[in-house]
Amino acid sequence: MEALSPASLAAADAARKIREGLLTSEELVAACLERIRATERSVQAWTFLDEAHALAQARAADERKRSGEPIGALHGVPVGIKDIIDTADMPTENGTVLHKGRAPREDAAVVKALRAAGAVILGKTVTTECAYFAPGKTRNPHNPEHTPGGSSSGSAAAVAAGMVPLALGSQTNGSTIRPAAFCGVYGFKPTHGLIPRSGILELSRTLDHVGFFSRNVEDLALLAEVLVGWDEGDPDTRPRARIPFQTISSEEPPIEPMLAFVKTPHWEKVDAGTREAFAELTGALGERVEEVELFASAADAWSWHKTIMEAEMAANFEREWQQGRGKLSEQLRSLIERGRETRAVDYQRALRRIRPMVEGFDELFMERYDAILTPAAPGTAPKGLSATGDPSFCTLWTLCGMPALSLPLLQGSDGLPLGVQLVGRRGFDARLLRTARWLVEATR
Amino acid sequence: MEALSPASLAAADAARKIREGLLTSEELVAACLERIRATERSVQAWTFLDEAHALAQARAADERKRSGEPIGALHGVPVGIKDIIDTADMPTENGTVLHKGRAPREDAAVVKALRAAGAVILGKTVTTECAYFAPGKTRNPHNPEHTPGGSSSGSAAAVAAGMVPLALGSQTNGSTIRPAAFCGVYGFKPTHGLIPRSGILELSRTLDHVGFFSRNVEDLALLAEVLVGWDEGDPDTRPRARIPFQTISSEEPPIEPMLAFVKTPHWEKVDAGTREAFAELTGALGERVEEVELFASAADAWSWHKTIMEAEMAANFEREWQQGRGKLSEQLRSLIERGRETRAVDYQRALRRIRPMVEGFDELFMERYDAILTPAAPGTAPKGLSATGDPSFCTLWTLCGMPALSLPLLQGSDGLPLGVQLVGRRGFDARLLRTARWLVEATR
Repeated sequence: MEALSPASLAAADAARKIREGLLTSEELVAACLERIRATERSVQAWTFLDEAHALAQARAADERKRSGEPIGALHGVPVGIKDIIDTADMPTENGTVLHKGRAPREDAAVVKALRAAGAVILGKTVTTECAYFAPGKTRNPHNPEHTPGGSSSGSAAAVAAGMVPLALGSQTNGSTIRPAAFCGVYGFKPTHGLIPRSGILELSRTLDHVGFFSRNVEDLALLAEVLVGWDEGDPDTRPRARIPFQTISSEEPPIEPMLAFVKTPHWEKVDAGTREAFAELTGALGERVEEVELFASAADAWSWHKTIMEAEMAANFEREWQQGRGKLSEQLRSLIERGRETRAVDYQRALRRIRPMVEGFDELFMERYDAILTPAAPGTAPKGLSATGDPSFCTLWTLCGMPALSLPLLQGSDGLPLGVQLVGRRGFDARLLRTARWLVEATR
Repeated sequence: MEALSPASLAAADAARKIREGLLTSEELVAACLERIRATERSVQAWTFLDEAHALAQARAADERKRSGEPIGALHGVPVGIKDIIDTADMPTENGTVLHKGRAPREDAAVVKALRAAGAVILGKTVTTECAYFAPGKTRNPHNPEHTPGGSSSGSAAAVAAGMVPLALGSQTNGSTIRPAAFCGVYGFKPTHGLIPRSGILELSRTLDHVGFFSRNVEDLALLAEVLVGWDEGDPDTRPRARIPFQTISSEEPPIEPMLAFVKTPHWEKVDAGTREAFAELTGALGERVEEVELFASAADAWSWHKTIMEAEMAANFEREWQQGRGKLSEQLRSLIERGRETRAVDYQRALRRIRPMVEGFDELFMERYDAILTPAAPGTAPKGLSATGDPSFCTLWTLCGMPALSLPLLQGSDGLPLGVQLVGRRGFDARLLRTARWLVEATR
C-alpha cells in the first residue's frame, strides 16, 4: 500500500481531513480509483465501477462543503457496495446471470443512509451467486491463487487491497466474518435487526444481516452509527434511541474485559497453524481469557441453521427456480430443492430453538464474560478459486443474531492473515466494539 | 332474565354501582351464582366453578373497597374465563382429556390484567377440544337443542344466559364472533397483537387472538381498555400508549359512518332468513351502506388461512400427537396430520400474503368506509350438538388480524339470534366500537 496516498487512510481519518479542509473528496476518490486501476486486474473486486460517476459525486460533495451547508459523518468518503444491495444509479445483479442488467429504481435503506451521511457510492463489489456459495471472479489480495472468502468477496478484497476504506456486505452464514478474516481486514456483523435490510436481496429473513469491512475498529463504529436505524420495509428493525457507537467503543473498559474462548463443536476442523496461533494468543492474554465449553444443545445449531436457511431460501428463490433453474449453480439449485422439501413443522421447530439459545448466551455474558473469542474460520484462505471456504465458525452466531467481529490480529503458518472472531451479547454491539479495541491494543 | 337481579347488569353499570356503594361485589357474585344454579343444568357453560372461591374473591374486593384503597375499572365484577386461558387458582384443561388435571402455576397475562383491575375470576368456561372443532357439553341458551357455536362455547353461552356480565374467549378462525352471534351477545376480537396471549393455549401465533363477550358495546370498550397491553411473552404485542377505548367509543362519530356491505365469496352458503334480514338492515341504513365487492385475491384467503392454521397447529400440538393421538378427536388428528405434511415453502407463501391483503383493506377504509358490514355466520345456530357451525364468515378477517365485532341486532326466521358482523381497519379498534355504537342506535 502506498503510505502517502489518501487511498490508504481509514474512513474516519479521511472524513476528518475533508471536514478540516486538508483533503478534498475528489482527491480521495481519485486516489482510490488510481489504486483500483493498479490492482484490479489481479484482485477483481468490482462488478460495476463508473469512474466519472464516482468523481462527479466527489465533486458534488466538495461543492457542498465549500457552500457551507451542513455535512454528514462520512462526507466525501467513498464506500463499496456489495452487488446484492440496491443502488438507484448503478445496476444490481445479485451475482446471477438471471438478474443481468437489473436496474433498481430505489436505493437500499443502507445506501440511502450512506448518501445522507455524505458518502460517495464508489461502485458495486463482487458477490458470489445470490450471496450463496458459487464464487465470483474476486481473488485474495494477499495471494491471487487463494479465495478471498465469500459471499462478500469483492467488498472484503477491495478494502484489503486499499481500493476503498469502507465496503458493505452481508451475512446469512459466514459471508462477512469469513472474507474479512481471509483478506485481513476488520469485519463486523451487528445484531440481527439493528440495520435495515430493505432493498437487499433477501435470502432468509431470520438469518440475513448487513455486515461491513474497514481498516480499524473506529471505522466500524462510525459505520454502525450511520447505518443502524428503523425501516418500515424491514419488519425485524425497531424504532430505537440513537446508539453512540463511536463514544462507547472509544472508551476504556471500566474493568479489564474477560473473554470466553469457545472452540465450538467444529474445532477438529481447525488446522495446526491456527491452533498454534490461538494457543499463543490465549497464552498472551493470560487470566483475561478462559476456555468455556458450550451447553450441549448448541451442537444442534448447525442443523437448525441449515433447516431455516434452506426453507427460507427456497421460498425467496421460488421465481428463479421456476423460471431459470437451468442457469443456477448446482449448489444453489440443490439447496433450493432441499428447501422445497422441508416440512413446515421442522422449519417452525428450528425457528423456536433460537430464542432459548440466545437466552443461554445472555446468561454467559451476564455472569462473567465480555465477549466470546473464537476463530473466524478453520484456517487462512484456502488455495483455489472454486470455493469460498468453510463458514462453520460463523453459523452459530448468525443463527443467534449475535454481533460478531473479525479482527486481523494473527497470521497463519502460510503467512496469510488469520482472523480472530469476537462475539458479543445480542444488542450490546457498542460494548463489543469497545472490547475489540481493547483486544487490538492488548495484542499490539 | 330476572330484570331485578344484579346478575343482569352490564359490567360497566355493575362496576359503577359497586364504586358508588350501591352494590357489593358479594351481592353481585351471589346473584350470578344463583343464576348459574338455575340455568347451568340446561346450558352447561362451565367446566370449573368453585362457589366458595368466587365469593371469597368478592368479599376480598368488598373489603378492599371499604378500606379506601384505590380500586380498578372492574372492581368486584365477575368474569368467566375460557378454559384454554391459564389461571393459577383453577385448573386449565384446554378441553382435552390429555390435559386433565392440568394446574398452571401462573395466570395468563389477560387474567393478571383482570385481577389488577379488580375483577373476580368467577370460573372456567367450556371450550371445544383445544379450541378447535370437537364440541364440549355447552348448549345454546336460546334453545338447548342448538349449538352455542365454538370454540368459546361456554363464555358466549354464560353471558347470554345472564350468568356473568363478561367472559373471555379466543379466536383463531371464528371462535369468538360465531358463538357471540349464535348466542345473541356482543362479541369482540380486537386487532391481532393488541392483547397479549401469554399463558393461553397456543394454536397458531399468526392467527390466535383474544376475544370477549358482553351485553353491550360499552362493556367491550371497558374490557379492551383493561386487556390491551404489551407482554414480553407475546412477541406480537408492542409497547404502546394507552388507547382510550371508552372515551373514543362513546363519542358521536364526527360524520355519519359509511359502511361497506361485503358478501364475501361464501355468500352462497347464507340461508334465506339471513339474506332477508340483511336486505332489511341494509335497506333501513339507506345511503349509509354500499355493497362492495372484494378484490379477486381475497378469494384465496381461506386456503392461506388453512395452510397457516394446519402448519402452526401441527407444530404446537407435536407433543399431544406424539404421545396421545389416540385420545384426540378425529377432526383434530386429521388437521395435525395435514399440517405435518405441509411444506415450509407453502407455509411461508401463505404468511406473505397477509400483509398485501391488509394493505388492500387499509385502502378501502382510507378511501371511504368506516367499517365492513357482513354476516357473522351463514345463519342462526344450527340444530344439533355434534358440531359448532361454520366459521367461514370470520376466516378472512382473522387471517388479516382486523378487529371484528358481532352485534346481536337481528333475528333469523327460526326466532334465534342472528349476528351482524362489523369489521374495522387494523389498529382502529376504538373507532370500530364507536361505529358499532352508532349502528346499534341507528337500528334501534
